[in-house]
Amino acid sequence: MTEKKSRSDERLSLPEVSRRGLLGGTARIATISGLAAGAGGAAGLAAGSLFGSSRARAAEDAAVVAPGDLDDYYGFWSSGQSGELRIFGVPSMRELLRVPVFNRCSATGWGITNESRKILTEGLLPETKKFIEKRGGILGYMNGDLHHPHMSFTDGTYDGRYLFMNDKANNRVARIRCDIMKPDKIIEVPNASGLHGLRPQKYPRTGYVFVNGEHRVPLPNDGSILDDPEQYHAVYTAIDGDTMEIAWQVIVDGNLDNTDADYQGKYAFSTCYNSEEGVTLAEMTASDMDWVVVFNIGRIEEAIKKGDYKEMSGVPVVDGRKGSPYTRYIPIPKSPHGCNTAPDGRHVVINGKLSPTVSVLDVTLLDDLFDDKIAPRDVVVAEPELGLGPLHTAFDGEGNAYTTLFLDSQMVKWNIEKARRAYAGEDVDPILEKIDVHYQPGHNSTSMGETKEADGRWLISLNKFSKDRFINVGPLKPENDQLIDISGGKMKLVHDGPTFSEPHDCIIVRRDIVNPRSVYDRNDPMWEDVRKMAEKDGVDLESAADVIRDGNKVRVYMHSVAPVFSLDSFEVNEGDEVTIVITNMDDIDDLTHGFTLEAHAIAFEIAPQATASVTFTADRPGVWWYYCQWFCHALHMEMRGRMLVKPKKA
Amino acid sequence: MTEKKSRSDERLSLPEVSRRGLLGGTARIATISGLAAGAGGAAGLAAGSLFGSSRARAAEDAAVVAPGDLDDYYGFWSSGQSGELRIFGVPSMRELLRVPVFNRCSATGWGITNESRKILTEGLLPETKKFIEKRGGILGYMNGDLHHPHMSFTDGTYDGRYLFMNDKANNRVARIRCDIMKPDKIIEVPNASGLHGLRPQKYPRTGYVFVNGEHRVPLPNDGSILDDPEQYHAVYTAIDGDTMEIAWQVIVDGNLDNTDADYQGKYAFSTCYNSEEGVTLAEMTASDMDWVVVFNIGRIEEAIKKGDYKEMSGVPVVDGRKGSPYTRYIPIPKSPHGCNTAPDGRHVVINGKLSPTVSVLDVTLLDDLFDDKIAPRDVVVAEPELGLGPLHTAFDGEGNAYTTLFLDSQMVKWNIEKARRAYAGEDVDPILEKIDVHYQPGHNSTSMGETKEADGRWLISLNKFSKDRFINVGPLKPENDQLIDISGGKMKLVHDGPTFSEPHDCIIVRRDIVNPRSVYDRNDPMWEDVRKMAEKDGVDLESAADVIRDGNKVRVYMHSVAPVFSLDSFEVNEGDEVTIVITNMDDIDDLTHGFTLEAHAIAFEIAPQATASVTFTADRPGVWWYYCQWFCHALHMEMRGRMLVKPKKA
Repeated sequence: MTEKKSRSDERLSLPEVSRRGLLGGTARIATISGLAAGAGGAAGLAAGSLFGSSRARAAEDAAVVAPGDLDDYYGFWSSGQSGELRIFGVPSMRELLRVPVFNRCSATGWGITNESRKILTEGLLPETKKFIEKRGGILGYMNGDLHHPHMSFTDGTYDGRYLFMNDKANNRVARIRCDIMKPDKIIEVPNASGLHGLRPQKYPRTGYVFVNGEHRVPLPNDGSILDDPEQYHAVYTAIDGDTMEIAWQVIVDGNLDNTDADYQGKYAFSTCYNSEEGVTLAEMTASDMDWVVVFNIGRIEEAIKKGDYKEMSGVPVVDGRKGSPYTRYIPIPKSPHGCNTAPDGRHVVINGKLSPTVSVLDVTLLDDLFDDKIAPRDVVVAEPELGLGPLHTAFDGEGNAYTTLFLDSQMVKWNIEKARRAYAGEDVDPILEKIDVHYQPGHNSTSMGETKEADGRWLISLNKFSKDRFINVGPLKPENDQLIDISGGKMKLVHDGPTFSEPHDCIIVRRDIVNPRSVYDRNDPMWEDVRKMAEKDGVDLESAADVIRDGNKVRVYMHSVAPVFSLDSFEVNEGDEVTIVITNMDDIDDLTHGFTLEAHAIAFEIAPQATASVTFTADRPGVWWYYCQWFCHALHMEMRGRMLVKPKKA
Repeated sequence: MTEKKSRSDERLSLPEVSRRGLLGGTARIATISGLAAGAGGAAGLAAGSLFGSSRARAAEDAAVVAPGDLDDYYGFWSSGQSGELRIFGVPSMRELLRVPVFNRCSATGWGITNESRKILTEGLLPETKKFIEKRGGILGYMNGDLHHPHMSFTDGTYDGRYLFMNDKANNRVARIRCDIMKPDKIIEVPNASGLHGLRPQKYPRTGYVFVNGEHRVPLPNDGSILDDPEQYHAVYTAIDGDTMEIAWQVIVDGNLDNTDADYQGKYAFSTCYNSEEGVTLAEMTASDMDWVVVFNIGRIEEAIKKGDYKEMSGVPVVDGRKGSPYTRYIPIPKSPHGCNTAPDGRHVVINGKLSPTVSVLDVTLLDDLFDDKIAPRDVVVAEPELGLGPLHTAFDGEGNAYTTLFLDSQMVKWNIEKARRAYAGEDVDPILEKIDVHYQPGHNSTSMGETKEADGRWLISLNKFSKDRFINVGPLKPENDQLIDISGGKMKLVHDGPTFSEPHDCIIVRRDIVNPRSVYDRNDPMWEDVRKMAEKDGVDLESAADVIRDGNKVRVYMHSVAPVFSLDSFEVNEGDEVTIVITNMDDIDDLTHGFTLEAHAIAFEIAPQATASVTFTADRPGVWWYYCQWFCHALHMEMRGRMLVKPKKA
């Protein structure tokens, strides 16, 4: 039985990616004419001709962080489909740490330790828990699409407590504790699909974490409604950032793309690129105008109080479709994407994507809009035409905005006030400067730029294509995160930064705001379950060298001090359920140990003063070495021991 | 039932990690006295006082790669317990690509696609295949400890065909095709345990890949022998690099640590740190002398021919214990670690670890040693005392060697010929220069330094601790891979490179040697199985938009051209086994697509002109969006479709 479908006539003819095509051409010609020799020579020549090395070299000094010098900023990077958070130093653009969140991490044991499995599992919906059981447990569910990492706010600026981030692939939101840089909560959001945009409430504090359901699905999505898109819905979600419980949800018209919050604690905003509510490309891009949805936080909280909601999957869901008192729909051309509140506390920039414009909203007009004193488009106070494919905007705190132009592969600097004056009819050009980026920028980010403390020092362009900018590493190329110095009035491109697939968004945080620990507090809540278990077993974790047998359950407690584990062997029976608990009693910065159990796919990190545990079935009879996989000491290779598994019929 | 064991009296008192302790102290004093303010200020001050920024800044220019300029070398980095291979640009020290090997990759779908699952599974031993079935399939077995990545050789230098690398955690060896930078073969090695050192044969070509079993285990390791270490063995393995089948193995006395091969194709070498054959730290470090084992390749090949071996797990295993004609044991002080053949083709440096010396062997004397004309120690032609904790040595091709001193946190440059003269009694100091590295270096590597084309340009120090060298990212710190310019006669430290846990080894390869494709060949063997399946189904992969039902098996064939998948929806029944096949028909460099299926933990990469597939059970009734997770086009967000799963009882 064969069904055939085709949608070849459905493709849109968009302007071809312009400079990238040109560059490719240049490179090819250079090769053919034999002007450039050696691997990558052609690409180098092409790039060099567009962006002279001497100019680049001069500009770049500002970004040099010499050996032993420290960066001024933390960069918190998403990794897209890699599923992790990344920490960079800025301006050196060096990757300092990967923090596994939705992904399985072979190094740290994220997904393997009991502590991480609990965090990964307990916030899942019941139907997903059932699903992962069929896939062999949580290890069958270790992918994610981490788009938007943002820090908790207090009074309009970062407060260094938490980072929040979404998983578009599996509809999850995670929180990372900034004191230890590990996730402590991961929740699955019900009723919504394709969780995309995410931003924390800026004022008075976080407070809420807002997250956008991009895809429209039936409610409930249990198969009772299938190919009937008119019955699909998109849902906006507010999570309580302190408890990581869902506070409320709002059903909207259209879909949801990116979101941001104001500096007053009154409103949040979401772009919609599919007001058509289509399910094919042609349907989704049919209209000339889509919209931004404005959410009235106070009114929604009142609705919850007075019971004007429907409970779905345990969450109060408010109806915020057109005509509702809780939302307003402001028409925006055409399929808008990015949504960025300016540090002036007043303006919100909505980026046009398929329109060459950005639309600037004035939040001081929103009270009147909600009171129906003005029309939705009256909130738009500027709409400058910037170039092809405006996707996201960042700010310098001096009234200027920087917008990525995906199709033009450019960064455009423009002035908000001038854009207002131009919109009001004055003959003034809001565009101050354009520079090329390489190539196809998505998000951008300025130092402290999404806070009231935007400082106008650095701008990052997260480019989706790197093409010929680096030596060739095969069909899968790196992205290119470029660093631009904006401190001197002019934009200066100072660094090309290749990154693995695929950072979508980043924030740049002054280093005095972030103060992680170097060594764990022995009372850390991370291993609370193990603490209780050890107490019950009468074991002191910090001096443990104990094997507790309880039927066919065996609990093995060790501590480690470089270069030894406190047990150099232990014996179990084939089929036993074995729990291994290790406490790292070294208390020196950077003296992490690891525990790898050979041929059992068990390996994890134990940071200084931390406790970690793993549970598994000992079903391979024989002698199995465990060893420390973090090079900890001159005698690191000797830091090992044996698990002896007695066969069943021995 | 409780058993108590303790080994507190077993710890050795080694020299305390010297300069790191001092630095920590300095930093702490600075904080207390209030000299430095702000996060990281104290650390910055401490580092600055040891290594002046102005000096560093001047030195560093050589390593600057301006935006648009290209690196001169590929760096192939191991990642230790992260389980992946990393590709760097040198001298920029930018990470260009991660290549998942033993680890689950959320981005590329390594471990998820049928193509990767086949490579990950087919080379496993039968007992391991049984084991992973109990753990929910290969996704339960996705960790590795990738130590030593090395390129295939022809005639003593890199040939750009393959990279080989080991997994210490699960006893595997993987091969990466350098044309596409993906693994094509992963095999599990039987009889050996703790596969550690790995090097390819240098001459006449690779040929053999040699790999060391570090841990001693019973043969067979099936539980019939347990706590009886005298019956344990360590095993040396030679793999055929062309077929990735095991050519032969050798049982040795002691254990095996690191290995290297000569430039003549006659001998290979392995260090042994545990000639005592102990299983506790005290036992393993009891003797003052351990040894290096020399393997006579010709004699071993003859032994196989004439049948002087025992077949174990399908592999011919030769007895190479003391007294055998196939090996020689050269005494070396004390617990030697690194093993490095010099580009002069004549010398092999054995690094003393617990001895402050390195021992230099002369390979021209080995024929006489095997003919019993000279004694084992007669092969040692130099033994300079270099400092505390010599671990590995690299070469500049001009007769100089660079050795890492783990305990001293230094790199020492010395001259091989001078060391020979000193050993012969002449009053000459072989040490030319020492510089500090930060901190505790393990492996090092020079540009082309393990080939006859060593060019003396760059030296990398892979440091195990970074401590205060970067802004603090929490209890888990980065490693620090430092770049040293050795081209000017003096060593100049030019770059601190933080890396995620934990690169052990790297090689630096001239860029003209490596020539990957940018777009797949449609005939690539990677998707041979799918090609056959599609032929049988009468489907043309390159124009596919087909749903083939075969009982409860459904095969969904699509192709993709930005920004559409050729099917915008397909319907299956709950419980169907669904195979999705996608061919990326875009043929532009860097235009990778992805396929993510929401809430099913399915996501993978489809590079330009590639085909990829996945098989799963559709057990979640409802509407599930799939989307492209590689930002491919201005209408990327719209590149999506729906899987409709009809419930069983609909």
